[in-house]
Amino acid sequence: MSPEQRLLIEHECGKLPLLFAKYADDGDHAALADLFMANGTYDRPFQPGFPFHGRAAIQSIFRDRPPILVRHLVTNVLVAVVSETRARGSNYVVMMSNHAQVDPPQSSNGIFVGGFDDEYVLDGGKWRFASRKGHLALHEGGTIPNFPTPTDEARGLK
Amino acid sequence: MSPEQRLLIEHECGKLPLLFAKYADDGDHAALADLFMANGTYDRPFQPGFPFHGRAAIQSIFRDRPPILVRHLVTNVLVAVVSETRARGSNYVVMMSNHAQVDPPQSSNGIFVGGFDDEYVLDGGKWRFASRKGHLALHEGGTIPNFPTPTDEARGLK
Amino acid sequence: MSPEQRLLIEHECGKLPLLFAKYADDGDHAALADLFMANGTYDRPFQPGFPFHGRAAIQSIFRDRPPILVRHLVTNVLVAVVSETRARGSNYVVMMSNHAQVDPPQSSNGIFVGGFDDEYVLDGGKWRFASRKGHLALHEGGTIPNFPTPTDEARGLK
Repeated sequence: MSPEQRLLIEHECGKLPLLFAKYADDGDHAALADLFMANGTYDRPFQPGFPFHGRAAIQSIFRDRPPILVRHLVTNVLVAVVSETRARGSNYVVMMSNHAQVDPPQSSNGIFVGGFDDEYVLDGGKWRFASRKGHLALHEGGTIPNFPTPTDEARGLK
Repeated sequence: MSPEQRLLIEHECGKLPLLFAKYADDGDHAALADLFMANGTYDRPFQPGFPFHGRAAIQSIFRDRPPILVRHLVTNVLVAVVSETRARGSNYVVMMSNHAQVDPPQSSNGIFVGGFDDEYVLDGGKWRFASRKGHLALHEGGTIPNFPTPTDEARGLK
Repeated sequence: MSPEQRLLIEHECGKLPLLFAKYADDGDHAALADLFMANGTYDRPFQPGFPFHGRAAIQSIFRDRPPILVRHLVTNVLVAVVSETRARGSNYVVMMSNHAQVDPPQSSNGIFVGGFDDEYVLDGGKWRFASRKGHLALHEGGTIPNFPTPTDEARGLK
């Protein structure tokens, strides 16, 4: 693979975490789900170990929650090309949000720092997430949300 | 347009928000103004809806204020190429500053998160901002500054 | 130099600050040291003016400290190519950490914002840091650590 070809793959895959953040923040859950392979998986930073399977299950997380004011700041985007159709990557995400008031500007409920380990696949001419595995590392202020354990059905397992 | 050509445009335009931050933080108001088209516009994140028109008006914002210690952290830089001479983009900005003490290190007056929607134009061989439209989304600590409404003259309208 | 060649250099050098952060956060001090030239220098953001010289001295900073939970968020990565084998760059770093508890997630001891001025050199086919000069600008919460002055021996000067 030429350096130019590798660079193009790194660039295309490196956009995916930024687009994920954009669509999450804009509430565009359909576009967010379309960033994943049909059988892609998403393991949430605030509740690692319970991955959601498939576009419909992933989309429902973002579609079925109450509106929130949120920003996902993505940094440290690193992509390692595995082949012409596969790549891996890691990135950090800083999350700030207000769940009570959605008209900006608002105070944030703390600052949370975590990130993702990603797998990317070239899928019909478009790079998509095969998987996103999230984690939470540190927070300044705020309270870590305590999500109820998702059902197997919600996670796309049934 | 080839993928390589598109990548080059995305890369060049994606540098502009970073250079804007660098020049703002370094107090280099002349270099900052030169990032804009001669008739470019700048709508401030802390006071959206009152765009400044033209390099002179934009430069004066940064030249005529008291010195401050400030950092603009730019993330989520996304560029969409429209043509060989036009592109659009969005990015987030985290702002931390101290207006009373300018010798680093200092405590920050909160952490403010906003961003920009940008338009880029190839202008005499160099990509520049045609417009920057700012917004403020969330803040952790600190107090949102209450700028007086700028005059039409200050905004380059007269 | 062609625009494509320049872009490749900017991309390769721009990865170095991100890899530095990754290895620092993962505790991979050997990989971190290998990002530097054999005679590279590292001037710490929390103690500028006392650069460490050479890979062994740099590695020892990260190897010989107690384990900590830390994230270095790297933003505003700008690279200016000087020649086919030399480049310069600047970048910002947001540091959050907990030195008492290392199992994530934990509360952070404040949010610190600084950055680096870097020099990059193509060294046997691989771009490496010739020097990193750190600074600290602002912090929200937390207490600035008060490092004891490092010995000349620790700094690789003897």
